[in-house]
Amino acid sequence: MHAVILGATGYTGSVLLRLLGNHQAVDRITAVSGSLNGQPVLHTDPGLDPRLLKKLEHTKGMFVPVEEAAGLNSDVVFAALPHLASAKMCGPFFNSSVVIDLSADFRMTDPEAFLAAYGEPIPRPDLLNRAAYGLSEIYRDQIRKADIIANPGCFPTCILLPLLPILSAFPVNGTIIANALTGISGAGKKAVERNLFVSRSENACAYNPGRAHRHAAEIIQEIGKVSRKTELFFFPHLVPMKRGMAATIHLETKEACKDKEVLAVLQKAYKEAPFVRIRENSIPETVDVWGSNRCDIGFRTEGRHLMLFSVIDNLVKGASGQAVQNMNIRFGLDDTEGLSAGSEL
Amino acid sequence: MHAVILGATGYTGSVLLRLLGNHQAVDRITAVSGSLNGQPVLHTDPGLDPRLLKKLEHTKGMFVPVEEAAGLNSDVVFAALPHLASAKMCGPFFNSSVVIDLSADFRMTDPEAFLAAYGEPIPRPDLLNRAAYGLSEIYRDQIRKADIIANPGCFPTCILLPLLPILSAFPVNGTIIANALTGISGAGKKAVERNLFVSRSENACAYNPGRAHRHAAEIIQEIGKVSRKTELFFFPHLVPMKRGMAATIHLETKEACKDKEVLAVLQKAYKEAPFVRIRENSIPETVDVWGSNRCDIGFRTEGRHLMLFSVIDNLVKGASGQAVQNMNIRFGLDDTEGLSAGSEL
Amino acid sequence: MHAVILGATGYTGSVLLRLLGNHQAVDRITAVSGSLNGQPVLHTDPGLDPRLLKKLEHTKGMFVPVEEAAGLNSDVVFAALPHLASAKMCGPFFNSSVVIDLSADFRMTDPEAFLAAYGEPIPRPDLLNRAAYGLSEIYRDQIRKADIIANPGCFPTCILLPLLPILSAFPVNGTIIANALTGISGAGKKAVERNLFVSRSENACAYNPGRAHRHAAEIIQEIGKVSRKTELFFFPHLVPMKRGMAATIHLETKEACKDKEVLAVLQKAYKEAPFVRIRENSIPETVDVWGSNRCDIGFRTEGRHLMLFSVIDNLVKGASGQAVQNMNIRFGLDDTEGLSAGSEL
Amino acid sequence: MHAVILGATGYTGSVLLRLLGNHQAVDRITAVSGSLNGQPVLHTDPGLDPRLLKKLEHTKGMFVPVEEAAGLNSDVVFAALPHLASAKMCGPFFNSSVVIDLSADFRMTDPEAFLAAYGEPIPRPDLLNRAAYGLSEIYRDQIRKADIIANPGCFPTCILLPLLPILSAFPVNGTIIANALTGISGAGKKAVERNLFVSRSENACAYNPGRAHRHAAEIIQEIGKVSRKTELFFFPHLVPMKRGMAATIHLETKEACKDKEVLAVLQKAYKEAPFVRIRENSIPETVDVWGSNRCDIGFRTEGRHLMLFSVIDNLVKGASGQAVQNMNIRFGLDDTEGLSAGSEL
Repeated sequence: MHAVILGATGYTGSVLLRLLGNHQAVDRITAVSGSLNGQPVLHTDPGLDPRLLKKLEHTKGMFVPVEEAAGLNSDVVFAALPHLASAKMCGPFFNSSVVIDLSADFRMTDPEAFLAAYGEPIPRPDLLNRAAYGLSEIYRDQIRKADIIANPGCFPTCILLPLLPILSAFPVNGTIIANALTGISGAGKKAVERNLFVSRSENACAYNPGRAHRHAAEIIQEIGKVSRKTELFFFPHLVPMKRGMAATIHLETKEACKDKEVLAVLQKAYKEAPFVRIRENSIPETVDVWGSNRCDIGFRTEGRHLMLFSVIDNLVKGASGQAVQNMNIRFGLDDTEGLSAGSEL
Repeated sequence: MHAVILGATGYTGSVLLRLLGNHQAVDRITAVSGSLNGQPVLHTDPGLDPRLLKKLEHTKGMFVPVEEAAGLNSDVVFAALPHLASAKMCGPFFNSSVVIDLSADFRMTDPEAFLAAYGEPIPRPDLLNRAAYGLSEIYRDQIRKADIIANPGCFPTCILLPLLPILSAFPVNGTIIANALTGISGAGKKAVERNLFVSRSENACAYNPGRAHRHAAEIIQEIGKVSRKTELFFFPHLVPMKRGMAATIHLETKEACKDKEVLAVLQKAYKEAPFVRIRENSIPETVDVWGSNRCDIGFRTEGRHLMLFSVIDNLVKGASGQAVQNMNIRFGLDDTEGLSAGSEL
Repeated sequence: MHAVILGATGYTGSVLLRLLGNHQAVDRITAVSGSLNGQPVLHTDPGLDPRLLKKLEHTKGMFVPVEEAAGLNSDVVFAALPHLASAKMCGPFFNSSVVIDLSADFRMTDPEAFLAAYGEPIPRPDLLNRAAYGLSEIYRDQIRKADIIANPGCFPTCILLPLLPILSAFPVNGTIIANALTGISGAGKKAVERNLFVSRSENACAYNPGRAHRHAAEIIQEIGKVSRKTELFFFPHLVPMKRGMAATIHLETKEACKDKEVLAVLQKAYKEAPFVRIRENSIPETVDVWGSNRCDIGFRTEGRHLMLFSVIDNLVKGASGQAVQNMNIRFGLDDTEGLSAGSEL
Repeated sequence: MHAVILGATGYTGSVLLRLLGNHQAVDRITAVSGSLNGQPVLHTDPGLDPRLLKKLEHTKGMFVPVEEAAGLNSDVVFAALPHLASAKMCGPFFNSSVVIDLSADFRMTDPEAFLAAYGEPIPRPDLLNRAAYGLSEIYRDQIRKADIIANPGCFPTCILLPLLPILSAFPVNGTIIANALTGISGAGKKAVERNLFVSRSENACAYNPGRAHRHAAEIIQEIGKVSRKTELFFFPHLVPMKRGMAATIHLETKEACKDKEVLAVLQKAYKEAPFVRIRENSIPETVDVWGSNRCDIGFRTEGRHLMLFSVIDNLVKGASGQAVQNMNIRFGLDDTEGLSAGSEL
C-alpha cells in the first residue's frame, strides 16, 4: 500500500510517520509538508527510525508539495491538517484514494452546529454522504465501506467509547457531566506563549467549558444518535503532561443500576475490540495507555449515580492510532496491524 | 507570640515553618518532630531561611519531643499530623493554647459520617463544642472566639469558597458535580510507589470518586448547613504537579441566572476578603495562586447551568496558609500578616 | 523611592514587579511595556498581588510608554530588555537615575569579545567607565558608587560565586570545566517551538557548548581578572523545569588541597554574605533555593581534583533578585530588604 | 525460545516484559517475582499488552518463584535484580541457560575495584572467565560466545560508546571530564522520599561526584583497556524526567583535531551498528531516543578541545534493550529483532 500524509510535521503527522513506518502492509509513504518541501524527512525529526527511509525512497526521502503527492497513485491519504484547510487540501484525492481526515471537516452533519463550532460553513457538504464517522469500535461497518473517514476528536473518542453503550442500555435522567483532562500536545505544535514549558509546568486549569469547546458539539451529535433527549456538559482541563487524556463522566440512571449490570453492558459492547479494556475493579490512569492505541474504561455505581472513567493516549487512540486502525478496517486488515495495545512504561 | 508546630517535617509543617518564620507577631517557634528529635531544624531542610534560627533559639535550633513542647508556654499550637494522631498529641495543649488542627479530627460533627470516612470514632467528641470550622472567610466570627480551630481540608476549601455563597443565593436542582485536580503534595510525604516521580510524571487519573473520598463527607456536611436537600458528587484527580488545586463545579439552578447576578453574589460575599478574588472574565489557573494564600474564582452561565471554577495552592490556602490566617483572625491581627496574596511566577 | 521597570512583562520583569511590590523602600513603580501600553498591569498577570496597585497609582495602574516614564523623576531604572535594545532604551535615564541593566550591554569591556558574542559592537562604550559589574558579593564597593550596574548573567553568577575565591586562593593547572543545568525560563518568554511544553517535558540536552555560549565570554572575562592564564570550558544544558540552575565545576589545583582548606577559603569569602551559604557536607539541589536570592555552594576534593557545586534560582539571584540586591547596595539599604533567603518548598 | 525474567516487577523487568512480549523469536516467558508469586502478571501492570498472555500460558499467566523457574528448561535468563542478589539468584541457571545479568555482579574483573564500589567481594569470581562485558557494539565477538553476559550500566553505556573509538584514535592529555544527566527511573522503583514526585519536580542536582559513583569504576575499567594512562572524572546529575540520559564529555587531545577527523573515526566505528547514529551537525537531545534502543552521538572541536555528546534511553539501551540486543547477538538473530530504533514522540 501507498500512504500519503498531509501535514507530516505536526504532532499527529509525526506519530503517523512512526506508525506507518512500522506497518507491514504499507510499503510507500509520501510525506507532504507545506513549509519543509524538499527537505529530508529524517533530518527534521531525529527521533524517526532510520529504516523509515526505505518507504520514502520514491521521493528520495524528501517532503514533497501536495501537487506532487496528488500526481502519485496512493491508496490512502491521511490529512493531519487544521480544520477547513483539510477539506481543501484533500481535494485532489477524494476520487482516487481513501481519505482519512483527522480534522473536523467531515465529522459533523448539522450545518448550524458546524458553523457555530468552527465559524465557517461545512466546507464540502457534497461529500458528507460518502463519509463515515471513524469511531472504530462503533462504526466499523460504515468505515469498511467509506471513501472518506472522519477521524474523531480526542475528547469525543475518550468520552463516547464508555458512554455510548451505557446510553443504549440505561435510560438516563438529567444532564451528563463529562470532565476531561488532556496533555498539552492536544493543543498542537503552534508556538504560543500559553503552551510554553514555563507556562504549563506546575499549572492546571479548565478551559472552554460547557458547550464552548468545539468537541462538545461533536460529542452531543453522537450521543444524540443514541439517546435523543440527553443533555451533556463538557469540561476540558489542561494538565502538565505532554500526552494522555482522562475522562470522568457522571450520569444519573432512571433506576439504580448495579456494578455487574454495568460491567456486563461494557464487556458485551467491546468483547471483540482488541483496543478497549474494561477494568473491573480499578480506575485507569493515563500512563496505562501511554503510547498505545488502547482505551481503558473503569466504572463505579452508587445507587442511581453511574460514574465512568476512561483513558486514552490523545495522539494515538485519540488521533493517529485510530486513523491507522480505521485504515486497517477499511482495507480488510487486522485492526491491530501496526498498532500497540501495550503502554510505554 | 510563641507558636508550636507538631509534625514540623511534613509538607504542611515545612510550609508552616516558612510562614511563621516571616510572621512579624511570632517571635518564638518550637518545632516538634517524632523522628528527628534533637536534630537541627535547619539541617533537615536546606531550603529554610537561616534567619529562622533566631526564633528557634530557645530550643537551640533543635527539634524537640512533644513532652518538652508541652512544658513551654505557648500561645498557639499548629498540629500538622495525620488524622487521629492529631487529637491525641494535642492533648496537653487544649487547655493552655489555641490549637489549630490541620487534620480532620475536629472538622466533622456527625459521629457516623466521621466513622464512615475515617474508620474510627471521633477522637475527642467532648471538645467539639469548643471547636470552630476554620474556613476563614465564612466562619470568621466563630474562629475569633474558638479554642480549637479545625482547619479545613484542601478540597473542601477549594470547593466551598465558590459554592457556599451561590447555594445561599440560588435554589438548586439535582446533583452538584464537583471535579477537582490536585498536585501530588496533597498525598503527603509518605514514600509510596504510587507517588514516585516515575509513577506520576506524564500521568493523570481520577481516584476515590463519588462519596469515597474523605473530603466528600466534609464538603457535604458544610453545604448541608446552607442548603439541606442538596446532593453533591465529588471527583478528585491526581495530576503531575507538586502543588496546586483546581475545582470545576457544575450545578443547575431552579431558574436561569445571569452572569451579572452570579458576579454580584460572589463579589458581595468576598468584598472584604483579602485572599479571594472574583475573576470576571477569565477562568483561573493554578499557577495564578502558586505559593500564595489566595483563592481565585471564575464562573460561567448557560441558561440554568452554572459553572464555577476555583484555584488554590493546596499547601497554603488549602492548609498551612489558611492555618496562619486563622491564627491572625483568632489573635486580632490583620488577616494578611505573614501571608502573600501574590503568586510565585 | 521610585523605580522604573523597562520590559515589565518578560519573566525577569514579572519577578521584579513581585519583588519591588514587597520592597519597603520602594513606594512608586512605573511599569513600561512596549506592547501593552495603556493596559492595566494587574490584568496581564493574574498572579500579581492586588496590593501592588498602590505603588502603581501614579500611572493609574497602567503600563506606560518609555517616553512617559522618562518624564517622571525616578531613582532607579531596571532594564529587563534584550541585549542591544537595552542600552538604547535606557538612553533617557543615564543622567538622571541609577540604571540597573539586566542585559549584557554593560557587562563586557573588551570590544572584540562583545562583538564575537553579540554580533554587534558594544552599544555605549562611552558609558563603560561609569558601570560596575553587578556580582553583588564580589563588586560591592564598585556597585556602591556606580551610576550603571551591569547585572550579571545567570550562568556567570552561578559559576563565578564558587569559582572566584578558589581561583584567588589556589593556583590551577589546565582547563576548568564548568557544566551547568538551567530551567527553561532562562530562554525567555519568546514563543518558539523549542520551548513548548511538549518539546521540553521528558527531555534534556546540552546546547551551545564550549565557547559558543554568550555567557562563556562573560565568565572568561571575570576569571581573567583573578587568574590570567586560566582556561575554562562551559557546557550549559537545558533540563525540564521552569526555574533553577545548578553548576558543577571541575578544576585541578597545582598541589593537592584538603576539604578543610577549601571550606576555609569559601567561608572566609562569604562570611558576611547573607545570600551565600557554604554547604559543608552536602551537594546542593536547585529546589533548596527555588524562589530565593540565595546561592548554595558545595565542594569535594580528591587529591588535586577540586569539585565545586552551586545552585541558584536563575530568575532571582540569577537576574531580578540580584538586581534588587544591587539596588539595596547602591542606595545604602540592607542587602536583604525585599528579598528572601528561604526557598519555596 | 524460552526466556526467564528474574525481578520482573522493577522498571527494567517491566521493560523486558514489553520487549520480549513483542519479540518474534521468544514464544515463552517465565516471570519471576519474589513478592508477587502466584499473582497474575497482567494485573500488576495494567500497561502490559494483553497479548503477552499467550507467552505466559505455561505458568497460567502468573508470577512464579525462582525455584519453579529453575525447574523449567529455559534458553536465556535475564536477571533484573539488585547487585549481589543477582549472582546468587542466578545460581541454578548458570549451567543450563545463557544468563544476561543487568546487575554489576559480572561487570568488573578487578576484585579491589569491585569491593570498593559495592562493599563486598565479587560474588562469583569463579565464573568471570565465562562472562563477557555486554557493550553490544564493542564486544560483539565475546558476547556471541559467552554463557554469561554482564549487561553494562546505563552511564557506562552512554559514556563509553562515544568515548572508546575516540580514545583508540587520538592520544589524550590530562583528565577526561564526563558529565551526565539521568532521569529518575535510573534510581530504581524503591519508594524513598528522595524520589517522590514532590521531591524531584522542579529540581536538579549533582550526586555521587568524582569517583564516588559505582559506575565511575566501571567506566574507568573499560577505558583502561584502550588507553592505560587516561584519567576520568564522572559527574552524574539527577534531572526531573522519568526516562532519558545525556552525557557531555570533554577531553584534550595531544594535537588539535578537526571535525572531519572525529566524524570519520566515529562513523567508521559504528558503520554497521544499527542503533548508533553519528550526528554530524547537531547535539542530540534525550527525547530523540526516548523509548528506543538507540545511542545518538554528537561532537564539537575547538583546537585541542574535543567535546562529545551522547544520549540514550536509560531503561532501553541503558538496560533492558541492550540486554535483548545481547540476546539477539548471542543467539545469532538480527540485532534489531524486537527493538525499536525510533523514538516515542
